[in-house]
Amino acid sequence: MTAQRLSPLIIDKVVSRALREDFGDAGDITTAATIPANATSTAIIAARKSGVIAGIDLALAAFRLVDPAVRISIEKDDGARVETGDIVLGIEGTARSILSAERVALNFLGHLSGVATATAALVDSIKGTKAKITCTRKTTPGLRAFEKHAVRCGGGHNHRFGLYDAVMIKDNHIAASGGIANALRAARAAAGHMVKIEIEVDGLAQLTQALDEGADVVLLDNMSTDDLKKAVAINNGRAVLEASGNVTVETVRAIAETGIDVISSGWITHSAPGLDLGMDFK
Amino acid sequence: MTAQRLSPLIIDKVVSRALREDFGDAGDITTAATIPANATSTAIIAARKSGVIAGIDLALAAFRLVDPAVRISIEKDDGARVETGDIVLGIEGTARSILSAERVALNFLGHLSGVATATAALVDSIKGTKAKITCTRKTTPGLRAFEKHAVRCGGGHNHRFGLYDAVMIKDNHIAASGGIANALRAARAAAGHMVKIEIEVDGLAQLTQALDEGADVVLLDNMSTDDLKKAVAINNGRAVLEASGNVTVETVRAIAETGIDVISSGWITHSAPGLDLGMDFK
Amino acid sequence: MTAQRLSPLIIDKVVSRALREDFGDAGDITTAATIPANATSTAIIAARKSGVIAGIDLALAAFRLVDPAVRISIEKDDGARVETGDIVLGIEGTARSILSAERVALNFLGHLSGVATATAALVDSIKGTKAKITCTRKTTPGLRAFEKHAVRCGGGHNHRFGLYDAVMIKDNHIAASGGIANALRAARAAAGHMVKIEIEVDGLAQLTQALDEGADVVLLDNMSTDDLKKAVAINNGRAVLEASGNVTVETVRAIAETGIDVISSGWITHSAPGLDLGMDFK
Amino acid sequence: MTAQRLSPLIIDKVVSRALREDFGDAGDITTAATIPANATSTAIIAARKSGVIAGIDLALAAFRLVDPAVRISIEKDDGARVETGDIVLGIEGTARSILSAERVALNFLGHLSGVATATAALVDSIKGTKAKITCTRKTTPGLRAFEKHAVRCGGGHNHRFGLYDAVMIKDNHIAASGGIANALRAARAAAGHMVKIEIEVDGLAQLTQALDEGADVVLLDNMSTDDLKKAVAINNGRAVLEASGNVTVETVRAIAETGIDVISSGWITHSAPGLDLGMDFK
Amino acid sequence: MTAQRLSPLIIDKVVSRALREDFGDAGDITTAATIPANATSTAIIAARKSGVIAGIDLALAAFRLVDPAVRISIEKDDGARVETGDIVLGIEGTARSILSAERVALNFLGHLSGVATATAALVDSIKGTKAKITCTRKTTPGLRAFEKHAVRCGGGHNHRFGLYDAVMIKDNHIAASGGIANALRAARAAAGHMVKIEIEVDGLAQLTQALDEGADVVLLDNMSTDDLKKAVAINNGRAVLEASGNVTVETVRAIAETGIDVISSGWITHSAPGLDLGMDFK
Amino acid sequence: MTAQRLSPLIIDKVVSRALREDFGDAGDITTAATIPANATSTAIIAARKSGVIAGIDLALAAFRLVDPAVRISIEKDDGARVETGDIVLGIEGTARSILSAERVALNFLGHLSGVATATAALVDSIKGTKAKITCTRKTTPGLRAFEKHAVRCGGGHNHRFGLYDAVMIKDNHIAASGGIANALRAARAAAGHMVKIEIEVDGLAQLTQALDEGADVVLLDNMSTDDLKKAVAINNGRAVLEASGNVTVETVRAIAETGIDVISSGWITHSAPGLDLGMDFK
Repeated sequence: MTAQRLSPLIIDKVVSRALREDFGDAGDITTAATIPANATSTAIIAARKSGVIAGIDLALAAFRLVDPAVRISIEKDDGARVETGDIVLGIEGTARSILSAERVALNFLGHLSGVATATAALVDSIKGTKAKITCTRKTTPGLRAFEKHAVRCGGGHNHRFGLYDAVMIKDNHIAASGGIANALRAARAAAGHMVKIEIEVDGLAQLTQALDEGADVVLLDNMSTDDLKKAVAINNGRAVLEASGNVTVETVRAIAETGIDVISSGWITHSAPGLDLGMDFK
Repeated sequence: MTAQRLSPLIIDKVVSRALREDFGDAGDITTAATIPANATSTAIIAARKSGVIAGIDLALAAFRLVDPAVRISIEKDDGARVETGDIVLGIEGTARSILSAERVALNFLGHLSGVATATAALVDSIKGTKAKITCTRKTTPGLRAFEKHAVRCGGGHNHRFGLYDAVMIKDNHIAASGGIANALRAARAAAGHMVKIEIEVDGLAQLTQALDEGADVVLLDNMSTDDLKKAVAINNGRAVLEASGNVTVETVRAIAETGIDVISSGWITHSAPGLDLGMDFK
Repeated sequence: MTAQRLSPLIIDKVVSRALREDFGDAGDITTAATIPANATSTAIIAARKSGVIAGIDLALAAFRLVDPAVRISIEKDDGARVETGDIVLGIEGTARSILSAERVALNFLGHLSGVATATAALVDSIKGTKAKITCTRKTTPGLRAFEKHAVRCGGGHNHRFGLYDAVMIKDNHIAASGGIANALRAARAAAGHMVKIEIEVDGLAQLTQALDEGADVVLLDNMSTDDLKKAVAINNGRAVLEASGNVTVETVRAIAETGIDVISSGWITHSAPGLDLGMDFK
Repeated sequence: MTAQRLSPLIIDKVVSRALREDFGDAGDITTAATIPANATSTAIIAARKSGVIAGIDLALAAFRLVDPAVRISIEKDDGARVETGDIVLGIEGTARSILSAERVALNFLGHLSGVATATAALVDSIKGTKAKITCTRKTTPGLRAFEKHAVRCGGGHNHRFGLYDAVMIKDNHIAASGGIANALRAARAAAGHMVKIEIEVDGLAQLTQALDEGADVVLLDNMSTDDLKKAVAINNGRAVLEASGNVTVETVRAIAETGIDVISSGWITHSAPGLDLGMDFK
Repeated sequence: MTAQRLSPLIIDKVVSRALREDFGDAGDITTAATIPANATSTAIIAARKSGVIAGIDLALAAFRLVDPAVRISIEKDDGARVETGDIVLGIEGTARSILSAERVALNFLGHLSGVATATAALVDSIKGTKAKITCTRKTTPGLRAFEKHAVRCGGGHNHRFGLYDAVMIKDNHIAASGGIANALRAARAAAGHMVKIEIEVDGLAQLTQALDEGADVVLLDNMSTDDLKKAVAINNGRAVLEASGNVTVETVRAIAETGIDVISSGWITHSAPGLDLGMDFK
Repeated sequence: MTAQRLSPLIIDKVVSRALREDFGDAGDITTAATIPANATSTAIIAARKSGVIAGIDLALAAFRLVDPAVRISIEKDDGARVETGDIVLGIEGTARSILSAERVALNFLGHLSGVATATAALVDSIKGTKAKITCTRKTTPGLRAFEKHAVRCGGGHNHRFGLYDAVMIKDNHIAASGGIANALRAARAAAGHMVKIEIEVDGLAQLTQALDEGADVVLLDNMSTDDLKKAVAINNGRAVLEASGNVTVETVRAIAETGIDVISSGWITHSAPGLDLGMDFK
C-alpha cells in the first residue's frame, strides 16, 4: 500500500501543541547546556518489537517544526510491517534539533503504531472472511483523526468519525422516541440524504423491525455467534450488519465466520499498548 | 486522600477540543433527531472493572461545557479504588445533553483511570519499600498534564514534566560534552539554582564520577538488581538514585528491594489499557 | 417546529471573533464617550421585510458575550415566518451593552435569515412534490455550520458538510480512476461502512453504469426535465437521484415534478440577499 | 491599478479555518480514494459571468496551505474587470491538491468578487460626480477585512472598520447625551486627536447644529435629493457629507448629483450575489 | 472620573495566557502541597508607593479566571490617585485561589499603574496649558490596548492604536512619494473619509507645505521651543500640531507653553517603572 | 558568548500577535498609500544608547513574518554589548515590508535589551564575588519566556519560570501548614524528585529550622548585610542562600560580599527602561 500523506493542515497544530507541551517556556535546557550549537548527527528510529507502522507524518512534523533543516528518509512508511531492529526513519541534522524533537516524534509514532499493530492483529485473525474490522468513537481525546488513520494503516476500516457524520440510534434513543420504527423514521426525516443510519438492536425481533424500516446498518451488540448467524440469515443482504462486544484476537474469527459484515472494536484505540520504537545515534 | 481539583484554566481548552472533535459542525445529529428537547434523565457512570479513578474533573467539564445545567454528584473521586459495579458519578439533566457529552466524558475518564490503575499496580507491588514509582515523558501527546495527574492518583510521583523543568543528561549529551564531568559542569553553569540535574550512567564507574561531580539524581537504566544494590552502596545517600528499564508488576518489587529511591516506568502512561467504565440511564 | 438550539461549543468562538472584529482594541469609543455607564434601555429587533428567521442563537450570543446581564425574549425563533414589522427579539439591559452588540447580532441574524428565506422560497415552490431542497458546499467561508442550519430553518435539508463526511465523485475523479465502475469500486473499498457514495453522471448511459455499481446517490447536473424524467424511470427507486444546475424559484417546480428525490442549490447560500432587520429603542 | 497584496498575517488564519471547515478530520475522502497520489493536472479558474475580481490572495492561500508545491499564474488580479470566459488563474500541481483546495478557493473568490462587482456597479453609475461610494459595518461576520478590501477593488472606499477607529454618533447616542452639542463635545473630549467624528442628523436643523459644533462628517440618512441639495448648500464645504438609505444602481446617480461627498451602501457587502466562477481541468 | 470597565472580550484571553504562563502544566505546586483545600483567607492589595491606578479589571479577571468564587471589593478604581499604604482591592476566598492568582494580578496592576503614574506626571506638569499628553506605538508587545487604557487613566489621551487606524507620513514615506504634496495627495486618495492624516515635518518650510495640502495633524519632532512657537503662529489653528522628542517631566511644560496642541511620549509606555503594589493577608 | 537561538515554536505566536496588534484589519495604510510596491530599501537598526542586546530572534521574526524575503545580517547578537551608534542589524528588502515591521521589531528589541542592560548593570557591580543575579516572577504578562532569556543575555541567571517548576514556600504557606517543618515535609512528600524546594525565612532562627529540614534553597528577604553574613555562616554550605529586597546598583555589591549565593531582583524585569534603538534608511 502507498501511504496516504496526512495534510499539515490537520497535523501541524496537534504536533505543535505536543512540542510546546514538552518545551514549555524554557525549552530543552539540557541540550542547550551540553550540546554545541553546530554539532551535527545522524540517527535512526528503529523498531524494538514487531508491528505495523503508523504516524510517520506526525514524526516528520515534529522534526520539521523544531527545525526545517533536519533531513529524514522514510524507510518504513505508514502501513508497513516491521520486525525488531528494522529501521523506520533515517535522520540527519543538528544534534540539538534531533534530540529536542525525539520524544514527541516517538510518542506519536509509538502510540499510533500501537493502534495499527492491534488493528492488524484482528485483521490477520479474520483473513479469508468477508468481515471488516472497524474502530469506534472510544478514542484518545484530541487524537481521533490520527487513531482513525492508524486503524486504516493496520488494515482496518473506519466507523463514523463523530456524532456529526452518521446517525447511530442506541437503546436510549429508541426508548425516548417510542420504539424502533419511530426512531428510524425520525432519523430519516431529519438526516440529509448523504447520511447513513445505524440502529443498535438487542435481539432478533428488533432486527426484523429495523430491517423493515430500512435501516442502513444494524449493530448487534454482545450477541452469541449463534444469534449472529441467525441475524445474517434474517438480514439476507438488506442492511450492513455490525457485531461488537467481547472482540479479541481469540474471539474475532468465530464472529467473522458468522457472515457478519463489520466487527467493531474499542480496544484497538483505547487500550492498544504502544509499539516500542527507539532512536539511536550513529 | 482528598482529590486535588484540576483548574478550568488547564482543563477547559482540552475538553472543548475533545468535544469539538466529537461534535464537528453538525453536532449530535442522532440525539437531535430522536430525543425531545425537554426530556430529562438520570444516569450513572459506573465501573465495569476494578481499578483506580482519575479524571473526574475532565468528565465533569465535558458535561458542563455541553450544558451547565447538568447536575453531577461525585461518588468516587480521583484516587478512589473502585470495584466492578461501583457508581462513580450520578448525573441529572436533559437527556440530550447527557447523551451528547457521554462519550467524551468516558474517553477521558477511562483513559486516565487506566493510567491510575496501572500505576497503582506497581505502587501496590512495592509496598513497604522506600522506593517511589514515577512516570516519564513517554506520554500521550496533548494529555501529559492529565496523565501526570493520573499517576499521582494511582499513588505514584511525577518525574520532570518536560524538557524545560529539569536537566536530564543522557549518553548523547555526555558524548557531545566530552564526558560526565564536563556535561555536569556545563549543566550546572547554565541551569538556574532552582533546577535539578539528573544524569544517566551506564555502569558503576560512571556512577562514581557523577556523584563526585555532585549530580542531584542518577539514572541507572537496565541494570541488574545486583548492580543496583552495589550502586546504592556506592551512593551512600549522596544523590537520588533512579532505576528504569524492564519495570513490570513482576519485576518491580525486586528492583525496589535493592534500596533504590525511584523507579520510573513509561508503560504506565504509554501502554496502560483503559479502565472499563460505562454510563447507564435509570 | 421547535427550534433546535445551537451549542455554545459551536457558536461562541465564531461570535467572539465577530465581536472582536468590530471592537478592535479600543472598543466602542462612541458609546463610551456619549452614553452614561448606568443608563438602561429597552429595545426590539424587528423585521423590515417578510422572511424566515435563522440565527437567533448567534444573536443571543452576541449580546451575552458582550454582557451576560442583558435579558432577551425570543418572539420569533429559528424557523419562524415573519412579516414586515414583526418583533423578533425583545432586549433589556444597559444602553452601552445593547448598542455595542447590536451590529454583530444583526449581521448574523440578517445573513442567516436571508439564507433561510431563500431556502423557503424554493421549498414553497415545490410543495406537494416529494423532492427535497438541499444546499451545497458553496457556502461563506467560516459560516458553513450556521448556513447549513439556516437551510434547515427554511425547510431545506443538508447535503454533505464537507469533503470528509461523504464521497462525491465528479468528472475529474472518474477520469483519473479510469471510469465510473473503477471510481465507485475504489470509493467503496476505501470508505467506511457509514459513508454514502454519490457520483455525478453526464448522461443516461453513465447513470445506468452508476446504478449497476451500486451508487447510493447519483447527481444529474444541468439535465433537461425530459432527461430527468427518463432518469427517474431508469433508476426505478434504486439510488437517490439529485438534480442540480439552474435551480431558481421559476424553474424548481418543473424539476421537482420530474420525480427527482433531491434538488440542490448553491444560490441559497452564496447569493441570498440578507433579510432586512433593524433594532429600535423604545 | 496594481493590486495590493494582502498579508499572510491577515489571510492565513481565515483561509486555514475555511480549509479545516471543509476537510474536517477525515480530509478529502473522495480524492484520496479515486485519484493517484502522483497524478498531476493543469486547471484554470475562469469567470462564468462578467464582473470585478477580488480575493486573489485568499484563493492563492487556499492552494498554498493545502500544498505549497502548487504553482499558480495570476491572469486577472484584484480589481480587474472580467467577461464571461476570461481566465482568472492558471493552476498546476498534483490533481489531489488542486481538487481538495478548489471549493475553498472558489468560495472566497466568488464571494469577494461579488462584493467588488456590486461596488463597481454603483461606482460606474456615478462616474463624473465627485461622490465616493463607501461600505458600512453591515458585513459578513469574520470577513470584514476582506469585504472592505473587495469594496476597494470595485472602486469604492472604506468607511470605518469597526466601533474602534472612528466615532459615529447616532440618534440613541444623541438622546442619551442630551442633544447634538453635548454628544459632539463629549466625543471630542474623549476621542484622541487622530479620530474623526461623524454624527447622524435627521434634518437640516440638526445639520446646522452639527456643523456649528465642528463635526468632521455628517450622515444624512434617507433624505430626499432636494434635502440633500439644501444640506450641501448649508454645509458649504465645512464637513464631509455622507448620504445613505435606499442606495441602488437606479437611485445612486441622483444622490451623487446633489453634490454629496460620500454615499454609503450596506447592500454591496450584505447582499451582493456571488460572482460565478468555476474551475476546469485541461 | 468613573472608571470605564474593560470588556472580558478584550481582557480574558490575555489574562488567561498570563495565568497559563505562570501555571504551566503542573499548576501551583507549592500551594497544593502546603495549603488545605478548604482554608479561606482575607487579603488586601495595597500601594507601597504613591501613583495612579490602572488595570483593575485585569487584576479582577486574574482572580475570577482562577476561581469565580473569589469576592473582591474595589477600593481604588482605575484613574484613582493612591498614596503609600492605600488599599486598592479587598479580597476574600479560598487561600489557594488567592495565592495562585496573586502574582499575575499584581504583574498586570503594577505594570499598568506604572504607565498611568508616568502619564500623570507629565499631565500634572502642564496643568493650565491647552496641550494634551498622548502615547505612541512604542508599547509592550501584546499589551497595547491596556497600556493605551492606562494612559487614559493617567489623564493622557491616545494617539493612533496601530498602523491601521490613521495615516502617519514620516520622512521615508515622503521621500518615496516624491515630496510632501505628493505624499499627502496619495494618502488622501487612498484613505477613507473617516481616517485622519498626520505628517511629520522637519522644519517650518515643510510645515507650510503640509498645511497648504490640508494635513489634519502635523508632527514636529525634536524642534526647539522657539521653532515650536513659530510653528504655532504659522499654523494659525489650521491643523492640529503635535510635538515629540525629548519629552520629560522637566522639559514638558516649556513645550506645552509654546501653544502646541499635543505632546506625545514613548517613555510613558516603554520605560515607565512598575508601580509598587503588594498583597497582604489579614 | 554564542547566542542561543530562540525556537520559532516559542517565538512565532507571540510575534504574530504583536504584528496583528499593530496591523489590525486594515494593515499599514500609510505605507500602502505612499510607497510603491516594488521599491526596495536598505536600512539599519542601531543603538542610540549603550547597553546589552537581547531579542534579536524576535526582531528577525517580525520581519520574517511580514515578508520572508527580507534579508537581515546580525551585527550584534543577543548578549553583545553595544555603544551609541553601533549597528545591530542590517536589513534589505522592499521598503513596504521594512517599514511595516519596524515598530514591532523595535518594540521587542528595545524592551528585551532594556532588561538585559539592567541585568548587566547588576552583574557588573558584583564582578569578582561568587553571587549570581537572578530574576523573579515579576515579569511582563505574556513575555516571561523572553524576559527570562534577556536576563541570561545580560549575564544573569533564571529563577523558577512559574508556579509549576519549583516549590517556593512563603510566609502564608508556612502559616497555613503549621510551621516551617510541616511545610517543608508536606512539600517534600508532594513534589517529585526532580523539583527543588525553596523556603522564605524571616530570621536566623527560622533559617536553622529550614536547614535542619533539608530545604534546597533558602530565601532571605530584606535582611541586613550583617544578618546575611551570619546566615552564610550558619548555613555553612548546606543550602543555596538567596537574598532579595532593596537590590539596586548601589546596594548589590555589599549584598554579594556577604557570601550569599544568589541575589534576585524584580526590578530588572518589571521596571527596566527600554534600550533606545532606532531604524535608519540608507
